[in-house]
Amino acid sequence: MGNKTIFKGSVITLAVEDAHLPNGSVHKYEVIHHPGGACAVPIFENGDVLLLRQYRHPAGDYLWELPAGKLDVEGETPEQCAARELIEESGYEAAKLEKICDFYSTPGFTDEILHIYKATELKPAQMATETHEIIEVHRFKVEQIDKMISGGEIRDGKTLLGLYACGFGN
Amino acid sequence: MGNKTIFKGSVITLAVEDAHLPNGSVHKYEVIHHPGGACAVPIFENGDVLLLRQYRHPAGDYLWELPAGKLDVEGETPEQCAARELIEESGYEAAKLEKICDFYSTPGFTDEILHIYKATELKPAQMATETHEIIEVHRFKVEQIDKMISGGEIRDGKTLLGLYACGFGN
Repeated sequence: MGNKTIFKGSVITLAVEDAHLPNGSVHKYEVIHHPGGACAVPIFENGDVLLLRQYRHPAGDYLWELPAGKLDVEGETPEQCAARELIEESGYEAAKLEKICDFYSTPGFTDEILHIYKATELKPAQMATETHEIIEVHRFKVEQIDKMISGGEIRDGKTLLGLYACGFGN
Repeated sequence: MGNKTIFKGSVITLAVEDAHLPNGSVHKYEVIHHPGGACAVPIFENGDVLLLRQYRHPAGDYLWELPAGKLDVEGETPEQCAARELIEESGYEAAKLEKICDFYSTPGFTDEILHIYKATELKPAQMATETHEIIEVHRFKVEQIDKMISGGEIRDGKTLLGLYACGFGN
């Protein structure tokens, strides 16, 4: 009985916990603890959108994604994190960031919360990717984004959600 | 070096793996292997939507969610899984299921893929929830759904994405 930490990694912590449910029952629950993350939907004045082409080991493939990163810098707010990751990963800085939503990525097994910001008034800045980040930056027109969504080319949850929430894909 | 399974639970498997990146470098990667899941966006003829109010231990709270479940039944397709979970969790059966999209819930640390179906032509069926599932079924009008999305009341990723993809939230 009780909670037991099984593994503490550089990104995630796995615990097996007693979930005390509102109906009084107790159920063993496998939980991945995660610091959460923030991402930006970078939109130019003419509606063009920046997406990253990023290799993801768990998917074994390249995925189209919004610039994003973990909330693992001490004292940094989700908005500051989104702003920093946008610069580092896309090479653009946003003068304006607007909160779109925050959500549990997959609450059946993790407490990870992702925060999405609409990023506008973009200007070039200095990229700074890490060696294990295999990233290409691409700029797309609205029609291209809509087609990539409807054609199933965009397969990352936060990216689909951020784009829909900013009015794309309809 | 090599891949090591750290934990094999009833839902998730945690492994630490050597990710061989396309640039030739090798990077240690913490991966949660998950069978994936399927969910349904149940929409009545007049546009009303069914959502579940479900207690989630990782969130420590109740969340509004689409009926959904894991792909853990041998030989079951994602569509059959969505149809079954819809009946079991909401008490409604759909005569029509249309694939909306599939996506990685959070590809930074898991290979979980979720499949979303639009479920229409609904009629009552026999619910069958499990003891650890604390679920209430609620029916909402379009305006209520839009308000719940814009007000931040819906905080589950697949649910927000499924609703946006079916034209809500705009």
